[in-house]
Amino acid sequence: MSHAELEALRERADEINLQILKLINERGRVVQEIGKAKEAQGVYRYDPVRERKMLNQILESNDGPFEQSTIQHIFKEIFKASLELQEDDHSKALLV
Amino acid sequence: MSHAELEALRERADEINLQILKLINERGRVVQEIGKAKEAQGVYRYDPVRERKMLNQILESNDGPFEQSTIQHIFKEIFKASLELQEDDHSKALLV
Repeated sequence: MSHAELEALRERADEINLQILKLINERGRVVQEIGKAKEAQGVYRYDPVRERKMLNQILESNDGPFEQSTIQHIFKEIFKASLELQEDDHSKALLV
Repeated sequence: MSHAELEALRERADEINLQILKLINERGRVVQEIGKAKEAQGVYRYDPVRERKMLNQILESNDGPFEQSTIQHIFKEIFKASLELQEDDHSKALLV
């Protein structure tokens, strides 16, 4: 593999990083909307059944190269961060 | 917000999950290719300077709602998993 080919792979990795970033943040905004809706309905935000369902759907669609345990670990981090985002919004709402 | 609107947001979250999954796995394949190329050149795979550069580029592009520390944490997990993938390939290559 030439230096130029290696460079092209790195550029592709950089592009993918930014696409993942964009999607994670879009997901964050969607989850914020969901949190507001549940808040208005007086429903507690964390829903382990919904989280399990999402994880199962993701794992069923995983065709590698990452193993199930790795994908599960990464998505649990994304879910945790999203929940914290909702909690921040909740705290801010209480302060108003 | 109606039940239908909440359901639509959940469907959007599900779609985004699968798009993120697809990109993470695509990134895994690109990183495997990079690993093979570096292996052929006899270069050690882990490159902290390249990792820092990627993180900086990602953080510069982060426009929220997630905080920089959260984005950095999630991407470090993705990078770690990718490195493990290269290490698995390396071990398999040694066994051949």
